Amino acid sequence: MNHSANARSWVEHANGHSDFPLQNLPLGIFSRPGEARRCGVAIGDAILDLEAVLAAGLFDGAAKAAVEATRGGALNAFFAMGRNARVALRERLQVLLGEHSEHQAALKPALLPASDCQLHVPAQIGDYTDFYVGIEHAKNVGKLFRPDNPLLPNYKYVPIGYHGRASTIRPSGTDVRRPKGQTLPAGHTEPSFGPCARLDYELELGIWIGQGNDMGQAIPVGDAAEHVAGLCLLNDWSARDIQAWEYQPLGPFLSKSFITTISPWVVTAEALEPFRCAQPARPEGDPQPLSYLLDKRDQASGAFDIELEVLLLTERMREQGIAPHRLTLSNTRSMYWTVAQLVAHHSVNGCQLQPGDLFGSGTLSGATPGSFGSLLEITEGGKLPVELASGEVRKFLEDGDEIILRARCTRDGVASIGFGECRGTVIAAN
Amino acid sequence: MNHSANARSWVEHANGHSDFPLQNLPLGIFSRPGEARRCGVAIGDAILDLEAVLAAGLFDGAAKAAVEATRGGALNAFFAMGRNARVALRERLQVLLGEHSEHQAALKPALLPASDCQLHVPAQIGDYTDFYVGIEHAKNVGKLFRPDNPLLPNYKYVPIGYHGRASTIRPSGTDVRRPKGQTLPAGHTEPSFGPCARLDYELELGIWIGQGNDMGQAIPVGDAAEHVAGLCLLNDWSARDIQAWEYQPLGPFLSKSFITTISPWVVTAEALEPFRCAQPARPEGDPQPLSYLLDKRDQASGAFDIELEVLLLTERMREQGIAPHRLTLSNTRSMYWTVAQLVAHHSVNGCQLQPGDLFGSGTLSGATPGSFGSLLEITEGGKLPVELASGEVRKFLEDGDEIILRARCTRDGVASIGFGECRGTVIAAN
Repeated sequence: MNHSANARSWVEHANGHSDFPLQNLPLGIFSRPGEARRCGVAIGDAILDLEAVLAAGLFDGAAKAAVEATRGGALNAFFAMGRNARVALRERLQVLLGEHSEHQAALKPALLPASDCQLHVPAQIGDYTDFYVGIEHAKNVGKLFRPDNPLLPNYKYVPIGYHGRASTIRPSGTDVRRPKGQTLPAGHTEPSFGPCARLDYELELGIWIGQGNDMGQAIPVGDAAEHVAGLCLLNDWSARDIQAWEYQPLGPFLSKSFITTISPWVVTAEALEPFRCAQPARPEGDPQPLSYLLDKRDQASGAFDIELEVLLLTERMREQGIAPHRLTLSNTRSMYWTVAQLVAHHSVNGCQLQPGDLFGSGTLSGATPGSFGSLLEITEGGKLPVELASGEVRKFLEDGDEIILRARCTRDGVASIGFGECRGTVIAAN
Repeated sequence: MNHSANARSWVEHANGHSDFPLQNLPLGIFSRPGEARRCGVAIGDAILDLEAVLAAGLFDGAAKAAVEATRGGALNAFFAMGRNARVALRERLQVLLGEHSEHQAALKPALLPASDCQLHVPAQIGDYTDFYVGIEHAKNVGKLFRPDNPLLPNYKYVPIGYHGRASTIRPSGTDVRRPKGQTLPAGHTEPSFGPCARLDYELELGIWIGQGNDMGQAIPVGDAAEHVAGLCLLNDWSARDIQAWEYQPLGPFLSKSFITTISPWVVTAEALEPFRCAQPARPEGDPQPLSYLLDKRDQASGAFDIELEVLLLTERMREQGIAPHRLTLSNTRSMYWTVAQLVAHHSVNGCQLQPGDLFGSGTLSGATPGSFGSLLEITEGGKLPVELASGEVRKFLEDGDEIILRARCTRDGVASIGFGECRGTVIAAN
């Protein structure tokens, strides 16, 4: 597969600083007004309509079978085909879209301006699981409750996770209605009901499951990476006041289930290959993972080096033409467990994973200010407001605030790729 | 609608002590070997094949439209039609299957012995939510950890719930593979990995969501009962040792997600109408529900009076022909919140509910020994073994043990109806 920084596309916009050069080729589900949902590939500022390319007779063999599996407005069947199908499609697309392609004339009608297209959640999500593998986040949050002992005793053994709500996962651009719920105001002994007053974002990596497993059959950690189709960005919007009151003893529920936003492009495992790295060394004294989580190859190259960024744009900043304020600059290397370890852990009890299931990584904060992946951490629970260039301050999110997540992979000698954006604007409670 | 105890069917078996008399008519999805999944109605020891009745031209109008929506091997589209469709179908079926039916000859080919049929999960479950509304269970479990203060401060305000795993919900009769996982053996500071040693059942009511809501639009408590299509039984199999180690801070995860078993028949809201009752009075000193959970009609008739039973049958008991041992005799009146309150709470933050979503009630224990809905409570965490007529004892479940849930509604002047069984046999870890 071609990751060389020199490989260029005849789609000129893909050759600049686009998130979507020839080396990326993420898949998504899009539609245009009045048309059916179908699969497209992002290339520069355009979307290649795979249905149209198929109709033009430009796919055959394994690539054709792969494209046929993307039909029906969801990528589940394509995900179920696993790595070989993704590779066949990728290789063919690199030929078709490469600068020496013989098919430019035939492809041009299939190349649509992305700005004309609406993007959707790319698969029918059977189950959504949210993990908690950002160890700096776990420490930062734990410190607010237990300053001397922020991590619980299970943290370094168990890839902590919980089931999330699948029905309210929405694509980038969907407005975020401020939720209502029960909260216990400080100093009170009885709860109140009303709009959330401590609305927050959480910067997470999303993980799309490819091939699944039968119920009762665990996925060995050494095979687990093969069950991941690709990645996206995920904003696990959180109502901190509702969460604090509801979460004992069974975990977060309505404080999270009002909406979860994802970036709509599936950046494939193949596109991410050059940006794999060794699992960061565990600090001295940390336990070795239990055997079902331990695989040499996974330790050597199972982590990802992806730079993550969160921007805030308030209504006033938009009005005054002020650039978004960067809240977070972080990296996926802060994950205490690899994606393969998450898959192995999730299935070790026999739990069935299915194509199109989605995992969230948990909030990916770094260890130092500027790298915290939520306002809860940045403001220490509302104590240290963020000052913005507009003269405003924020403890938590206000109506009209937009949160923008971005991700970028960079490495010498290979083309840099990005994830596109994951955006959402807070609107008033109804 | 006809609930009179005198109404009889020409299907003779339905007129005895069957769970499925003419007054019940629960819906399910069944198949016979080599045939497609389709919708059937339980009547006595038979299943009426609705596809065959439709083909015979015996449905028209609203009942026909309802049956057409049951096609495709899942009841989601039928659930989405709401109450009127269920009523139309029920009324027509009571005519067709009533003792004065003119259509007996035409219907007989559509009447299949239930023993020839396999039953399936009746809908494609988008999301599964497990609540915790059995207050005696919450007290019993709380006492094991906090003898003086078993209920947490939020319990009497918040209908506590959490997201569960939809992909491993299986119909009655599916074997239960003993899960493996991490546990922290007593006295150890480091966890071990291996088969669960404290496998348990949990007796729960299952609640099928009918019409859903749009994201951002809460369902008012006064309308919420209209969003429930019907009920079933649910066994929330639990690995207590895995649960104890994993559940902080985000709740149960792998200790539950290996399998959840449900009874396959959807006992409709209409069939249950005579068995509604007033919400049990809150003990003096308990707070009133917050306004979004409070509705006069719901308080007057929103609860259910359904008797629940759990039986245990070990391998040795089966070999020796010993009758199952009753572990639990309980009742849905122990629910601290009504089903309507669960729907209102779940959607109050704007969370979207969809047709075919499933709720579990949480374990429905009574206040006294003999009525506890899990072995955790019965044996006080393994301290008080259950003695069986086979000479065996049980602290938790052993391989080969079968758990059988049953439910029965009884009231003077109306026909008694049942739910059918929810069975599962534990098999060894692999």
